[in-house]
Amino acid sequence: MNELRRDPITGRWIIVLLGKIPTVTDFKVEPYTKNAEKCPFCWGNEAQTPPEIIAHRKSGPPNSPGWTTRVVPNKFPALRIEGALNKEGMGVFDVMNGVGAHEVIIDTPEHYKDFADLTSSEAEEVVWAYVARSLDLRGDKRFKYILIFKNFGKVAGASLEHPHSQLIALPIVPKRVLEEIEGAAKYYEYKERCVFCDMLREEIEEKDRIIYEDANCIGFCPYVSRFPYEVWILPKKHNSDFAGIPRDCVPNFARAMRDCLARIKALLQDPPYNFIIHTSPINGHERNDYHWHVEIMPKLAKVAGFEWGSGFYINPVPPHIAAKNLLSVKLDVK
Amino acid sequence: MNELRRDPITGRWIIVLLGKIPTVTDFKVEPYTKNAEKCPFCWGNEAQTPPEIIAHRKSGPPNSPGWTTRVVPNKFPALRIEGALNKEGMGVFDVMNGVGAHEVIIDTPEHYKDFADLTSSEAEEVVWAYVARSLDLRGDKRFKYILIFKNFGKVAGASLEHPHSQLIALPIVPKRVLEEIEGAAKYYEYKERCVFCDMLREEIEEKDRIIYEDANCIGFCPYVSRFPYEVWILPKKHNSDFAGIPRDCVPNFARAMRDCLARIKALLQDPPYNFIIHTSPINGHERNDYHWHVEIMPKLAKVAGFEWGSGFYINPVPPHIAAKNLLSVKLDVK
Repeated sequence: MNELRRDPITGRWIIVLLGKIPTVTDFKVEPYTKNAEKCPFCWGNEAQTPPEIIAHRKSGPPNSPGWTTRVVPNKFPALRIEGALNKEGMGVFDVMNGVGAHEVIIDTPEHYKDFADLTSSEAEEVVWAYVARSLDLRGDKRFKYILIFKNFGKVAGASLEHPHSQLIALPIVPKRVLEEIEGAAKYYEYKERCVFCDMLREEIEEKDRIIYEDANCIGFCPYVSRFPYEVWILPKKHNSDFAGIPRDCVPNFARAMRDCLARIKALLQDPPYNFIIHTSPINGHERNDYHWHVEIMPKLAKVAGFEWGSGFYINPVPPHIAAKNLLSVKLDVK
Repeated sequence: MNELRRDPITGRWIIVLLGKIPTVTDFKVEPYTKNAEKCPFCWGNEAQTPPEIIAHRKSGPPNSPGWTTRVVPNKFPALRIEGALNKEGMGVFDVMNGVGAHEVIIDTPEHYKDFADLTSSEAEEVVWAYVARSLDLRGDKRFKYILIFKNFGKVAGASLEHPHSQLIALPIVPKRVLEEIEGAAKYYEYKERCVFCDMLREEIEEKDRIIYEDANCIGFCPYVSRFPYEVWILPKKHNSDFAGIPRDCVPNFARAMRDCLARIKALLQDPPYNFIIHTSPINGHERNDYHWHVEIMPKLAKVAGFEWGSGFYINPVPPHIAAKNLLSVKLDVK
């Protein structure tokens, strides 16, 4: 019989199907070909983006080739950096100006790579760019939350194929983040322990859903995975704020991301995916009840539409099987 | 500048893009061809589904041709009707047996139609099937919620192309429903009015987002639409329980559904979509603070992946424009 499982953080339930488990090739991932022609994120085309905010470069002046990671404002931003919020009521609704920051982190100059293909030090550079931009933007008093994420592949919402991540600084804390934080706070109130730390302890004890572990980080297919081959990465040491990641943890975290994504890429034929860094809102204090982490969600299953409306997920691949399959990949990484 | 809007029911924020609005053809809906060969939902293939639970028929014995609407158990159910729940703890998690009901409502015997193409009386029949199954299943004490929805088109999660809807009876109230109910309850506590009734009043006053109205029902593109061309249908008279829909409201509701879907189909080149009936949990009393309704979500935009994780939506089509475009369709319906 299938199993209903409840996530203690958000109270979300999922149905794990325990019948015939789809094989890796059952998820028909559409093959794609990349084309670097006219790509605004490649070397030599720097003038096609707004001027860079920061860049790691080996050579050259700003906005010229020679960079290895480059951060630019989004040319078509959902939110704009200029202006006041002007929050006001509108009947039963609240309305605010679309003030915020919307930046693009170009992970690498190499059009045909993805995060999964980066060397450890290249991956570290990207993480440092995330951290640097988070630290800078949190100085702006209008912003309450910094959301860092990646859409990879058309199905996952990427409109450009050159490897890039995005950062949106928001004047509000997004709902899913609030839910997590409130759920974690309730757990803490009751148990005086961080729910993520408790979950981590259980994953480490049970072992069979872990796909990455080092001194600082862990990557696993969570017991209450919403999606087939969902992977979470957590720092082992309690820390609520991604931007406050200790310097010595960065190489581990970058490697954890790269290795987990490389396993997903190799096993599942380079599927589209999203990852999102979940961190605490900008407010200047470390929280005992929240734990930053990354959620990686391969886009494999046809989206069973009712999930949008119900918040109820059906996962056809039990997470311990997903972990076993991901671990079977022979990694060829630097 | 773009606008941030907050839904007073769930507290959800959306960003409405107020720049260049995509035209209808910008949403590249993939054309598809249907093929009725070997369809288990067509007349003559009744033996390929589990035996019918109920059916409207013009002729013939059960499980033979002659029906006009037919309800069968899902052959590959996410939840099964037999067994006890056996809720138990599992470390920080809760686990339960996958007990529930998972039924398929075959809307019509006509393979090449969709809900949008039904006559008014055919649409009514489907609605009666929804009501009848809801009333029957709520007698089972293990169930807390009845979720009725439709996935149309592969992208929206439909695995069979023959027009059908689904019903899942759940042993828990899904998270999104709880959120709505809690949000609406908070509003009621403060204002002593139903938030949906208030919203309805505003929509009727402002007029410019309404695409359907009759004595009993209203269809509109909500001010805080998450998706381009999202449409909600509400009964005008306060009623928290879909299964308690008054008999004289059924023809209006069926027509509202059909007309709104027909407008979406005609304007947007037959796009994939989901609809979900949002109703109150099974508990036997009418609630002053909740209002059943249907949410129709065309799957037009590439899913900007981070929305999954943030609960933050970016909508490129302001809802009053969506309504204007939908209203421009000349309906050819019976």
